Amino acid sequence: MKALVYDGPEALGFRDVPDAVAGPGQQLIKVMSVGVCGSDMHAYLGHDDRRPAPLILGHEAAGVIVGGMRDGERVTVNPLVACGTCAACARGHDNLCAERKIISMPPREGAFAQMVAMRDENLVTVPDHVSFDAASLAEPIACGWHAVRLARRALPEARTALVIGGGAIGLGAALSLSAQGITEIIILEPNDIRRGVLNGQCMQTSMSPDDLPADAMFDLVIDGVGYGATRATASAHARPGGVIAHIGLGEATGGLDIRRMTLQEITFFGTYTYTAQDFRDTAQAIFDGRLGRLDWTEQRALADGASAFTDIRAGTTAAPKMVLRPND
Amino acid sequence: MKALVYDGPEALGFRDVPDAVAGPGQQLIKVMSVGVCGSDMHAYLGHDDRRPAPLILGHEAAGVIVGGMRDGERVTVNPLVACGTCAACARGHDNLCAERKIISMPPREGAFAQMVAMRDENLVTVPDHVSFDAASLAEPIACGWHAVRLARRALPEARTALVIGGGAIGLGAALSLSAQGITEIIILEPNDIRRGVLNGQCMQTSMSPDDLPADAMFDLVIDGVGYGATRATASAHARPGGVIAHIGLGEATGGLDIRRMTLQEITFFGTYTYTAQDFRDTAQAIFDGRLGRLDWTEQRALADGASAFTDIRAGTTAAPKMVLRPND
Repeated sequence: MKALVYDGPEALGFRDVPDAVAGPGQQLIKVMSVGVCGSDMHAYLGHDDRRPAPLILGHEAAGVIVGGMRDGERVTVNPLVACGTCAACARGHDNLCAERKIISMPPREGAFAQMVAMRDENLVTVPDHVSFDAASLAEPIACGWHAVRLARRALPEARTALVIGGGAIGLGAALSLSAQGITEIIILEPNDIRRGVLNGQCMQTSMSPDDLPADAMFDLVIDGVGYGATRATASAHARPGGVIAHIGLGEATGGLDIRRMTLQEITFFGTYTYTAQDFRDTAQAIFDGRLGRLDWTEQRALADGASAFTDIRAGTTAAPKMVLRPND
Repeated sequence: MKALVYDGPEALGFRDVPDAVAGPGQQLIKVMSVGVCGSDMHAYLGHDDRRPAPLILGHEAAGVIVGGMRDGERVTVNPLVACGTCAACARGHDNLCAERKIISMPPREGAFAQMVAMRDENLVTVPDHVSFDAASLAEPIACGWHAVRLARRALPEARTALVIGGGAIGLGAALSLSAQGITEIIILEPNDIRRGVLNGQCMQTSMSPDDLPADAMFDLVIDGVGYGATRATASAHARPGGVIAHIGLGEATGGLDIRRMTLQEITFFGTYTYTAQDFRDTAQAIFDGRLGRLDWTEQRALADGASAFTDIRAGTTAAPKMVLRPND
């Protein structure tokens, strides 16, 4: 099969590799759409020790099962494989399973390839009216879906939200907020071109951080970036008793105004990925149309995948998500 | 009446001042016991712009109503006066009322005096079997009670807790944890003498921060200190999915390992003071004996109040709480 192989920092090769093989309890999936994640970019730049070259990256996949009992079934792939037996898994907190694995990290190859293998229970059936491009968004949107679910549990009366960052994580969080009943949402995005896409095609309300009034207060703030500067914004604009959900991994420390958070009883929680149930719920919301049209991806052939990475890095692509197609 | 008056940085004068006067809806209370809080020390050192000299400090008071319909009633005083009408108050979140006032801050004089005035609804009746010294602890312990209530709401299944700091706030939090059903509690306290009091008279389990194993994990961590170093400890020892409650105001920023909190989905919330209901619940827990013997205060006459401040500052007093007695 053909695959886009990470060969080292800023080196991607599109070439023949041995076919993916389905093990016991697994299916083989012909990958039709696979998104490029910030973590793929991170690895591509050589910044992720957990992803040494050579390696097939990519974990946001949708496609068609080939062979076996489910042959021909259209599916979207939850790339996270938890143990299913530890205390965290038993409580339904499989996102906290210490043994959890993801495709695109050894020993599992990723989905920037014509085929990928995955166990049955991670495959969610996609109805015919949903495109593979849209179905592949279940993974990145599930991160925001999970964060919004936890934020609403912490503050059930929440009605207003600020989302920091208009990339796929921030946009996914904003769409999840709408789908879960939060109606007043502002996305902060410094990039003019991206704001144009958000306010146009994505039908969101976004503004430049420079335009946010200093005294604007929100029940919920979702930081989809995770740098000191974005956390400073988050802790300045959560209202007394408000909640900050933090998805990003930009910088490890700093930024929060903890004095204000203490005096004003503001909650901050970190969140990363999602549970298996969140993934299924997000996929269902996609299928039901509750997450909107999801027509804001940009597509390229997997053979042109290297150009996708260089364009994303150069900031010359405005779409919140780039999707590669290995089997067009 | 006699009062201990803050006259400027490190200057306290014990002298005659005009008698406190009860306004409409208020009672006059003969103060029998009044605790020294860290915020009193902060003001005494000249570090609190909100408390300009000359001013009577002190807000942790218990005593006897003098005159009026409730003459002779033993009471403990909730020093916080919320507006009662704003949105926060209407939700029972009177600790978030933007109009809230406290005695010991202009325009209200404090309780380091023989008499203090307070509105009726802030006075909780104290049964005869409870000492004024114990009753005056309702205020500082209510801070921990409130933090523990919020922490348990965030993580109902919590069973283990680490409390950072063995002063009145930390000890109050530990006692509140026990009273609210958390049974495995460790207090971190660097001061040897204070650990002796905690492990002896206070019947707690405390240890030096140096002795805590690096991999020790707790469902809840309560930071009753609030410096960068204590927040670093908190974010290192909250288990995946765990909760940090932060009471202190030591340093405004820094310390949290936000990368770990994000990857391990750890919640952090700031908390400061308590609601009127928390105060009443804490007082009731004192009356019921659920907070233990509460015999770990050190007492001095109000006339000797200045020495209490110098001794606390010099670290030569081991008791978690110093109580002044204005009418002995």
